[in-house]
Amino acid sequence: MDFFFNPKNVAIVGASIGSGKLSAVIMENLVSSYGDRVYPVNPKYESLMGLRCYPSLKAIGDNVDLAVFAVSANAIPGLLREAEGVLRGAIIISGGFGEAQGEGERLDAGLRSAIKDTGIRVIGPNCLGVLDAHSGLDTFFIPKDRVKRPKPGRLSILSQSGSFALTAVDELAQEAIGVSRVVSYGNMADVDESELLEYLAHDEMTGAVALYIESVGDGRRFVESARRCSMKKPVMAVKVGRFDAGVSAARSHTGALAGRYELYRAGFRKASIIEAHGYEEFIDGCKALGSSVRAKGKRVVIITDGGGVGVNIADACVGARLEVDPVSDGLKEDFKKFLPPYCSLANPIDLTGSVLDEWFSETLAHALKGDLYDMAIVAPLWGPPGLTDRLPRLIAEAGRASNKPVIVCTPGGAYTKAKMRLFRENGFAVFTSPESAARAAGILATGA
Amino acid sequence: MDFFFNPKNVAIVGASIGSGKLSAVIMENLVSSYGDRVYPVNPKYESLMGLRCYPSLKAIGDNVDLAVFAVSANAIPGLLREAEGVLRGAIIISGGFGEAQGEGERLDAGLRSAIKDTGIRVIGPNCLGVLDAHSGLDTFFIPKDRVKRPKPGRLSILSQSGSFALTAVDELAQEAIGVSRVVSYGNMADVDESELLEYLAHDEMTGAVALYIESVGDGRRFVESARRCSMKKPVMAVKVGRFDAGVSAARSHTGALAGRYELYRAGFRKASIIEAHGYEEFIDGCKALGSSVRAKGKRVVIITDGGGVGVNIADACVGARLEVDPVSDGLKEDFKKFLPPYCSLANPIDLTGSVLDEWFSETLAHALKGDLYDMAIVAPLWGPPGLTDRLPRLIAEAGRASNKPVIVCTPGGAYTKAKMRLFRENGFAVFTSPESAARAAGILATGA
Repeated sequence: MDFFFNPKNVAIVGASIGSGKLSAVIMENLVSSYGDRVYPVNPKYESLMGLRCYPSLKAIGDNVDLAVFAVSANAIPGLLREAEGVLRGAIIISGGFGEAQGEGERLDAGLRSAIKDTGIRVIGPNCLGVLDAHSGLDTFFIPKDRVKRPKPGRLSILSQSGSFALTAVDELAQEAIGVSRVVSYGNMADVDESELLEYLAHDEMTGAVALYIESVGDGRRFVESARRCSMKKPVMAVKVGRFDAGVSAARSHTGALAGRYELYRAGFRKASIIEAHGYEEFIDGCKALGSSVRAKGKRVVIITDGGGVGVNIADACVGARLEVDPVSDGLKEDFKKFLPPYCSLANPIDLTGSVLDEWFSETLAHALKGDLYDMAIVAPLWGPPGLTDRLPRLIAEAGRASNKPVIVCTPGGAYTKAKMRLFRENGFAVFTSPESAARAAGILATGA
Repeated sequence: MDFFFNPKNVAIVGASIGSGKLSAVIMENLVSSYGDRVYPVNPKYESLMGLRCYPSLKAIGDNVDLAVFAVSANAIPGLLREAEGVLRGAIIISGGFGEAQGEGERLDAGLRSAIKDTGIRVIGPNCLGVLDAHSGLDTFFIPKDRVKRPKPGRLSILSQSGSFALTAVDELAQEAIGVSRVVSYGNMADVDESELLEYLAHDEMTGAVALYIESVGDGRRFVESARRCSMKKPVMAVKVGRFDAGVSAARSHTGALAGRYELYRAGFRKASIIEAHGYEEFIDGCKALGSSVRAKGKRVVIITDGGGVGVNIADACVGARLEVDPVSDGLKEDFKKFLPPYCSLANPIDLTGSVLDEWFSETLAHALKGDLYDMAIVAPLWGPPGLTDRLPRLIAEAGRASNKPVIVCTPGGAYTKAKMRLFRENGFAVFTSPESAARAAGILATGA
């Protein structure tokens, strides 16, 4: 399936220009990374954006790796049949198939038989297609000024919902988390989440997989594919339409009946999938898996300069089934060599408003050195005057030496948010509430 | 207790200048709003910041409404006794009393007997004191460039933890939510949360109260005070140190043994307190109570242009014990008059990527008009080109006409975050995840 992610050339069926048109946005995004390897297809035009425009895929006179279809649903089965023999893969953006009833169901059947007869592989319909941060392929039809694209990274995302995929990549771009392959796969007339998981399992550019599911086609196959993938790299999934309220909405959204939640949970466990409970945990998990090593156990040390926030984090960690064990007497003796007596050396460790940068980094280094803790949540509140811009680098150095996850939690307002950039520059994802930090820690420790 | 919030004059015992000193920060903040009604007290100086500096409170030669004490703990009982007869209220910033053992316990006893003997009312010790957005009184010792102060508003906050109070006001300032009285009350040597609740119950400047508790002194009195307050205005509380892990930390933090969580929950129910479960829900609740009317019931309508995100919100609402009832046939007929047939008219209502501004506002107006729904969550994803900067105003107008809560949920990245300002200018709090919107809705509907 490499041609879906790194095609040698790409056609746009229904190409056009002009503001507000989906196909124009796709055209611009593709040309910006694929240049003259883009073939516009539309009988109405001779040329588009300086590229020759072809009346049909066949007229290109070359084999085409990938074509993006942005034409009305009823034209698509015929166009696929015409392209037999010259086209390997198709991304069908258009809606109006299974998710609309009556006419939609008839078109869906026509599409599926065209796929079967031609052997052309299809992602979609009713989807955004593929965003590949390494090859630069980008079939998402939302302009980049509205939805930012993340930098290249190791996290791949599979999403049944297009709006969810958009929102997730936009948030990850904002958080400076890199991605590898992102697929909005829609109605699954051909390629489904199981086949994509098989591909990502063997994909060297993918270090972790995050999956948004409303429903799966074949449950048994999904569990097997996911298990094979999760043996090689972490696989996290969120299942939405968990409650009755969501069921009818998920059905009309992609035409699939959302399955019973408990069955999904059992499947997740069997496949060693890390379950994310809802949107926030999905995003927190993406940030954690996209920026950190996994934890080898569930024991967390919490280091802060704000006692109240430390207690909140401890509460949230216990709620996320992590272990917040007390600091050992031996470790306390270590701390006392460089911390003043008014610091609280319980867990959370409270460095108080008198804190200096090095108190954080040295406490972290000592806490993670032995076998007492598997990871740390470091929560600097930026009020105290002793904290400077050196802090993120010092924490990063102490964390790297341990090879254990270090999760940064910085709740606050404008000053705090301005400092997040420094943490991101040092490779950290930044979490802005005690609960989000605990969710991230929980995701990294699942299965440990 | 008005003198704690709107004193006619205020002294600073231990006044000084110079960067990094707590008393210097307090001095600057007080002078900026109280001008020459500030009396610096410190025998080391003749004058400070152009104001005459006095060797003692008595030497001022005037009755003093409020004095902020920022000197070492062991000096305070003696200074209070010296001030007998000239001082009404004291805010004691200094730590080192009950929260440190041994010597701290002895000093705590000395402080309590000085309070009893002199009749001076005391907030603290080990606290930040009072931030009053209406009078301008600000005894928080963190500079304003590090922690922003919110604009004047109707929400009052009581917090046992100083760091929690700081983080909360910083976040609320960032979110453009106004506050009335904010009190960080620390160790409660005299004034406690119950007395503050009694005061706020009758305070015309307070429309809602948010309370951060690690422990309460007298449980029965707390429940009675809170019940009297919640009969007049909404009272929300978060109890931290909920789990064993938190208990020891909360103890060393303010010297109080965190009580058993279930007892608190029972007390909250008895007092009709809205319980917030952790930091995120506390902040979400502050934003909701600080910007919206309460809901008269639990029935939510969800309006979005992103199907996947809509399903997520529905899931989160059901998780927050709200009701996500289907749209009635009559209402569907209303919608069909102005919405195209491909919009999904279940609940969530999906206006799709073809959405225009008016689809949101008209759908909202119709949905809230009758008796079918008690509130709305409106979740515009900003990808679709049909959405413009007029959207927040149109949604605000439709919402105001209904007199029901309208909660705005806009997950996303840079473009979305830039648009939040428009919602805030129209009086909305903005929630950035499905779960945070559902938590806000849940807080507004508690007790309905």
